[in-house]
Amino acid sequence: MFDVSQIALFLDADIIGDENVLISQISSLHEAREGDLSFCDQAKYLPELPNCRASAVLVRKQDLKAVTTTALVVADPYLSFAKISRWFDWRDTVRANVADSAQVSVSAVISNTAQLCHGVVIGENVRIGDACYVGPNSVIGDHCVLGNRSRLEANVTLYQDVKLGEDCIVHSCAVVGADGFGFAKAAIGWQKIYQLAGVRIGNQVEIGASSTIDRGALSPTLIGDGVKLDNQVHIAHNVSLGKHTAIAGCTAIAGSTDIGDNCTIAGLSGVTGHLTITSDTHITAMSLVSHSIKEPGVYSSGTGIEKHQSWKRNVVRFRNLEKIAKRLKKLENEMKNISLNQDLGKRE
Amino acid sequence: MFDVSQIALFLDADIIGDENVLISQISSLHEAREGDLSFCDQAKYLPELPNCRASAVLVRKQDLKAVTTTALVVADPYLSFAKISRWFDWRDTVRANVADSAQVSVSAVISNTAQLCHGVVIGENVRIGDACYVGPNSVIGDHCVLGNRSRLEANVTLYQDVKLGEDCIVHSCAVVGADGFGFAKAAIGWQKIYQLAGVRIGNQVEIGASSTIDRGALSPTLIGDGVKLDNQVHIAHNVSLGKHTAIAGCTAIAGSTDIGDNCTIAGLSGVTGHLTITSDTHITAMSLVSHSIKEPGVYSSGTGIEKHQSWKRNVVRFRNLEKIAKRLKKLENEMKNISLNQDLGKRE
Amino acid sequence: MFDVSQIALFLDADIIGDENVLISQISSLHEAREGDLSFCDQAKYLPELPNCRASAVLVRKQDLKAVTTTALVVADPYLSFAKISRWFDWRDTVRANVADSAQVSVSAVISNTAQLCHGVVIGENVRIGDACYVGPNSVIGDHCVLGNRSRLEANVTLYQDVKLGEDCIVHSCAVVGADGFGFAKAAIGWQKIYQLAGVRIGNQVEIGASSTIDRGALSPTLIGDGVKLDNQVHIAHNVSLGKHTAIAGCTAIAGSTDIGDNCTIAGLSGVTGHLTITSDTHITAMSLVSHSIKEPGVYSSGTGIEKHQSWKRNVVRFRNLEKIAKRLKKLENEMKNISLNQDLGKRE
Repeated sequence: MFDVSQIALFLDADIIGDENVLISQISSLHEAREGDLSFCDQAKYLPELPNCRASAVLVRKQDLKAVTTTALVVADPYLSFAKISRWFDWRDTVRANVADSAQVSVSAVISNTAQLCHGVVIGENVRIGDACYVGPNSVIGDHCVLGNRSRLEANVTLYQDVKLGEDCIVHSCAVVGADGFGFAKAAIGWQKIYQLAGVRIGNQVEIGASSTIDRGALSPTLIGDGVKLDNQVHIAHNVSLGKHTAIAGCTAIAGSTDIGDNCTIAGLSGVTGHLTITSDTHITAMSLVSHSIKEPGVYSSGTGIEKHQSWKRNVVRFRNLEKIAKRLKKLENEMKNISLNQDLGKRE
Repeated sequence: MFDVSQIALFLDADIIGDENVLISQISSLHEAREGDLSFCDQAKYLPELPNCRASAVLVRKQDLKAVTTTALVVADPYLSFAKISRWFDWRDTVRANVADSAQVSVSAVISNTAQLCHGVVIGENVRIGDACYVGPNSVIGDHCVLGNRSRLEANVTLYQDVKLGEDCIVHSCAVVGADGFGFAKAAIGWQKIYQLAGVRIGNQVEIGASSTIDRGALSPTLIGDGVKLDNQVHIAHNVSLGKHTAIAGCTAIAGSTDIGDNCTIAGLSGVTGHLTITSDTHITAMSLVSHSIKEPGVYSSGTGIEKHQSWKRNVVRFRNLEKIAKRLKKLENEMKNISLNQDLGKRE
Repeated sequence: MFDVSQIALFLDADIIGDENVLISQISSLHEAREGDLSFCDQAKYLPELPNCRASAVLVRKQDLKAVTTTALVVADPYLSFAKISRWFDWRDTVRANVADSAQVSVSAVISNTAQLCHGVVIGENVRIGDACYVGPNSVIGDHCVLGNRSRLEANVTLYQDVKLGEDCIVHSCAVVGADGFGFAKAAIGWQKIYQLAGVRIGNQVEIGASSTIDRGALSPTLIGDGVKLDNQVHIAHNVSLGKHTAIAGCTAIAGSTDIGDNCTIAGLSGVTGHLTITSDTHITAMSLVSHSIKEPGVYSSGTGIEKHQSWKRNVVRFRNLEKIAKRLKKLENEMKNISLNQDLGKRE
């Protein structure tokens, strides 16, 4: 339970109303009950305010008059809600402890404020920073580094030579540093190209559950500061992701592609290999980027959803688009001739 | 080995033929050998019956005359085959046991008929029901619940506050309850929105290997009774899946989307966020649903597969479709004028 | 550190230059430093050779004159680079050892040259061949087999009855042998079809991180020799993959589909169920194969990436393609009539 004045202090908010209200959780406007803090960041939610049962609400100054309870006035209620959400998080404070079932190599250097849970396995020459957390059954390969306050949830795997910065979160079943998919065509089948370089990850990076970031072939795969990856994202070897780029679920970035800063890529999308995507590029869901993008903006591919019956007919036409375009051109030429003839006819 | 009469009793089938045949496994019609039970559920497979070496066959009454061996007559042979398949499953009976290498918090309540395998880690205040099975190296976070007879295979991860009903199966490397992908835009980069709510899962739910179901932000993510998720399915935070909805491999459902009962979504599909999909909606493979669906039916998107050379030309035309449509409209108008002129010409 | 003459001997290369150069790592042409071995396999990289600081370079005979340092002349520099990359790999030599925290069933047969790491759990009647490696916290179900020199990285899961050949590599969080997605429609919801058969994997197969290969329903799922699967690939039950077929990240193959030898399938693609894809078929990224392919070649589907604004307009037209095609046909007929009228007019 927090006093609303503590929250206002942290968020640099003005309190309009009762400063002594106690807050036990945060909720959406329509689910809030007494003791809850809620937020209203858009005019379209204003009609919900009179019926909202929250004990306090984060609002913009211009929306203040619609609030019937204690108001915390801030410039960006959604951002303020995000900042305060940490106070209500389910994670325990990191406890300095190495579980007795954890297996730590003698050459590893573990901060005495770090927590290693049951079943953790730590390889040679690993360095684990202050207040780090390594969840149950996670495995950390040789020569890895975890910067201060970084956190691996349960069942995470880091291969050899993966270096994370500070304040990172890696979710369960993420795999960082597995071999990139590199093979040379041989007389019969494929010759494996061993993947010799590791992965370098900046500060404040979050990696979603079951995401995979492959190690580089000859130089490391690079993930910039503040990058956010959703679940089941795949980053192939030698990709470089710029700062604060965010990638949604089930998207794949193929090898050696270079993506700039502040990009967003929606779910189920793909970027093929060896491309350069400029900063501030935004890709909509299930799009395939198959050439480099030099101009910032929003890009898409695919067709929209429709009823299966009509879609089946349209797909057949798609396969004839080239022919359709040629028939159209032919008609246009014929039309030109006819118009010409008619004009001539009139003159005759 | 089972007596065919035991099987008939369980399936409520009429036996035509030898009631004492012994059955050691079930097989498809063309692979069956002596001692096998097979099934024929469609007229198109009838020609296989005379050559089938199975010792007994599940058939519909109308197909009985084609059977040359012992017949078990049922209304729906495929469903009967599904029901009896459990008798031949590879899983051992659950043995009441906690492996000595399992790590169980003192506050957890474990049924004395449950089995916890090697390397399992169980958090605070967890409740595990009767005849539950937790496979090797699975990790269960604080405050989770497993209903009776639910089963986690090896290397499953449940985060804090994930509650499963009865008779569920969760396959290896599934991750339930990881943080939803929630961030607010900050002055620089992204501010994490801590994900405070858990996941609620009904009875008889199956979750495929490496699938991920994220925890809710402010209220829980909801999975209805009888939902079946294939491998590598991603369910984002605050999604709600209705009863008996089935989702095939590598499909992603984005945040806060509400999907009704008895839907089927084929593989590699996506549904964008904050949509409502009505019950009895069916989505074909690799379709992107980008608006709500109010009318039940079958929906699709995408283009059909074709040879790369012709596809390349058609894709160029797709990018000119808007222009093609406008040129067509122009031609139609010109044609109207010409027809008008001709008509006028005839009248003159 | 290797002597360049050792490397030349292994690769059957001719040395032009100093035979006593020492090589400590391999690098790309533009990143190479003294002590590095690099390679030049294409004419377009020749201009980089004069400035390259590598101590030795793998080249084709015809490119020899551009080399200013020690040259190793080979027929295919890329393939030679791939072969020698193993010498520089980060993996330790397999050490015959069973970690004291590994849990091995008494009926398992483990070669005394195999290495089982911490937290490994091995089921009943498992057989592990010579020089195999099982990484930390991996779990191997009953009746599995690992052929000689096969390697499971950390956190791999093999269900019951999965048999791998020799020289395989399985990356972290891969799951082999989970239940296929098989259900029969019941009066209410779905009846599970228990998945009774296992998985059979050939020699020299590599399976990427977080990939899933499901067990067969009645007969095993089959993966041929030399198959290479990237990360997050999903192979459904009863699929058969021919020899040396390679599948890139996040692709899914649906149940009972049969894919030939030497195929390549790019990332984020799908193949629907019960199809037959002939050998030497190549599928480009994010394509959906929805019918069998009998003729080898390159196949594609989807639309190209474009700016969101123009895409939105084109997608609307796509949904009207059937109508556009009919309007075009109508115009063509009208044009024919007009031409006929004009001809008649001239004759009159």
